[in-house]
Amino acid sequence: MNEKAPLRHYLDWAATAIPDSLIDPGNTETRKAIFGNPSSHHAEGRLAREALENARSRCAKVLGVKSGSLYFTSGGTESNALVLYSLLRRKWNGRLLYSAIEHPSVRENCLVLERLGIPSRIISVEKDGRVTEATMARALEKASDARFAAVMGVNNETGSLMDIGALVPQVRSLEAPVHFHTDLVQALGKVPVHLSAWDVDSASFSAHKLGGPRGIGLLYLKKPLEPLYTGGEQEGGVRPGTENTQGAIAMADLLEHRAAPEAVKKEQAGAAERMKYLIGRLKKRSRCTLIPEDREEEDPRFSPWILQARFREVPGLVMVRALDDAGVAVSTGSACSSASPDRPVLAAMGVDESQRLEGIRISQGWSTTIADMDALLAGLEKTLSFL
Amino acid sequence: MNEKAPLRHYLDWAATAIPDSLIDPGNTETRKAIFGNPSSHHAEGRLAREALENARSRCAKVLGVKSGSLYFTSGGTESNALVLYSLLRRKWNGRLLYSAIEHPSVRENCLVLERLGIPSRIISVEKDGRVTEATMARALEKASDARFAAVMGVNNETGSLMDIGALVPQVRSLEAPVHFHTDLVQALGKVPVHLSAWDVDSASFSAHKLGGPRGIGLLYLKKPLEPLYTGGEQEGGVRPGTENTQGAIAMADLLEHRAAPEAVKKEQAGAAERMKYLIGRLKKRSRCTLIPEDREEEDPRFSPWILQARFREVPGLVMVRALDDAGVAVSTGSACSSASPDRPVLAAMGVDESQRLEGIRISQGWSTTIADMDALLAGLEKTLSFL
Repeated sequence: MNEKAPLRHYLDWAATAIPDSLIDPGNTETRKAIFGNPSSHHAEGRLAREALENARSRCAKVLGVKSGSLYFTSGGTESNALVLYSLLRRKWNGRLLYSAIEHPSVRENCLVLERLGIPSRIISVEKDGRVTEATMARALEKASDARFAAVMGVNNETGSLMDIGALVPQVRSLEAPVHFHTDLVQALGKVPVHLSAWDVDSASFSAHKLGGPRGIGLLYLKKPLEPLYTGGEQEGGVRPGTENTQGAIAMADLLEHRAAPEAVKKEQAGAAERMKYLIGRLKKRSRCTLIPEDREEEDPRFSPWILQARFREVPGLVMVRALDDAGVAVSTGSACSSASPDRPVLAAMGVDESQRLEGIRISQGWSTTIADMDALLAGLEKTLSFL
Repeated sequence: MNEKAPLRHYLDWAATAIPDSLIDPGNTETRKAIFGNPSSHHAEGRLAREALENARSRCAKVLGVKSGSLYFTSGGTESNALVLYSLLRRKWNGRLLYSAIEHPSVRENCLVLERLGIPSRIISVEKDGRVTEATMARALEKASDARFAAVMGVNNETGSLMDIGALVPQVRSLEAPVHFHTDLVQALGKVPVHLSAWDVDSASFSAHKLGGPRGIGLLYLKKPLEPLYTGGEQEGGVRPGTENTQGAIAMADLLEHRAAPEAVKKEQAGAAERMKYLIGRLKKRSRCTLIPEDREEEDPRFSPWILQARFREVPGLVMVRALDDAGVAVSTGSACSSASPDRPVLAAMGVDESQRLEGIRISQGWSTTIADMDALLAGLEKTLSFL
């Protein structure tokens, strides 16, 4: 598969096919040559295994954890589900806590688990949409039988930032062990992430939110767990299915490029500058209310990458469409629940129902510029002038 | 996002990031521009939605089913698990049948379900490793409470070919409804597949076995089902998580190229010719025994793409490594269970334990040539001469 290698005869097509890109003799990219099934005991398999483990090590180095604690999955949603459904394999004798602002892939699966006999309780949030040490303490007080807690790092609709490093010790001080899971999909590469220092038991990550391909994510597990869904010994028995080697390599590339501490620091500062600019201007508009209302131009309670705001008497979906016509892409809430008018995250923050429907989410990235913010502001101005 | 489009300002990074390949101004590939989250209500989202639904329609056309009956998943393993675990959401009052030769992603999940309270029964196979109308009838006779049956189309270790079109009517003639699921991962693009005519309730497919990328598969569902694992309304609520649009497009391209009836007919004939050549020569070697022993050079009971054989007194893993040194890649059984010495498929066929360990799997593809088969034969000759 490389210039020096002797001619190979691949007769393990049932494990995985030679990709079309390789059969085309014009193609000479080395990475594409890594096509074998990493579980296969031949040169193609070993090459793929080596590439996969190398990708895992690179991810581990960036995240500051052991290579063996990282598992490749199909994305953030699957990482969350994998941890939650593993509870069905435990001798369960306790309650599951999850914050009121969790992504649907945590919240909705907790509801399914409840129906399957695992009791749960919601960890409420402050008016700013954050789980704080106080709300966490209240939830733990009311649920002495808690054995699992899920609190995300950055909320996907408001950008509210949780101090995971301060929340974990609260469950560690309890007598019974509590598994602490955190969804870091909107945190990775955006705000500092310290898995080891935070001492979480598990964490979820996605590649596509970092500019990578779909269908690849990571799950960090301090200790291996027994998954519900099995069917292959891949990924240490934690995540079955032929390993997505190319996706894993892409994930490692992304982490090195975007999630290394220096890169995050630099990009976060840029995002904070642009957000300060945007919030400063939005605060001057009479019909605009930030969610929460007291969000500041520079606010340590929030990730500077995401902002939720509402515009009086303009339904969020109408504003999204009007801005779209003006060439500006924003959303209401999570794309994962865009088909539903419910806004459980805003409801948890105590936002009135009519006001919740006016919320829109503005979320930026590393290539966003002040010109994009100006286009948004102009689009808002134009829309508000005739609505 | 295309030449005629006005400048766009993408501020929905929390839904999905602009991929790095697009930020690089040198990149002009239209397909890569389809990066939006298909659930987003803006131009980028609509473009992605359109591309996703177009990919689904193209897959549906090749498979001869309605577009709405196809769901994109992360692969064959997930497609199988999705159907099986949905049983936990049903008011279950019956038994699950699965064939003794199912892939680990069916067999092992059935064992998990058994522990969670869903009783099951194995459908035994003939000595040739096939579920026949007779073995199916016996299983149904013994399990009058059957409500679900899983029988794969082509076995991944021996190539045994099931007559799915003859097995489905057996469950349809029963009084109680039985869901018939079939894993077609090793059938698609290799042997004729007739989802509608067969009248199956669900079927699983994978892209990478067809030469496509990892991390994308298809699930066919005659009727939608309620999945266990939720967390987003994507794929009609059947499969949560941001849709892998690029993977879906790749899957559609592959299906059109490889799974259209004419393509399958042509490729199957080529594979049959090469398999006839190989079996003819293997039958002349004294230490070689095909599994099953009576497999013929041209044998309608088997897919011509996969062959299982054993070589007296040579453990399968030793043979795999020796052939690997000779530049030939083969495997023992399924890559998905390569870490385990058990060979449940061969055990189900009545192969002795010592002989099972000698089994190797030879599987070919569309770019396999007679020269590859000759290299295998030479490698076997050389290995057998000193072992």
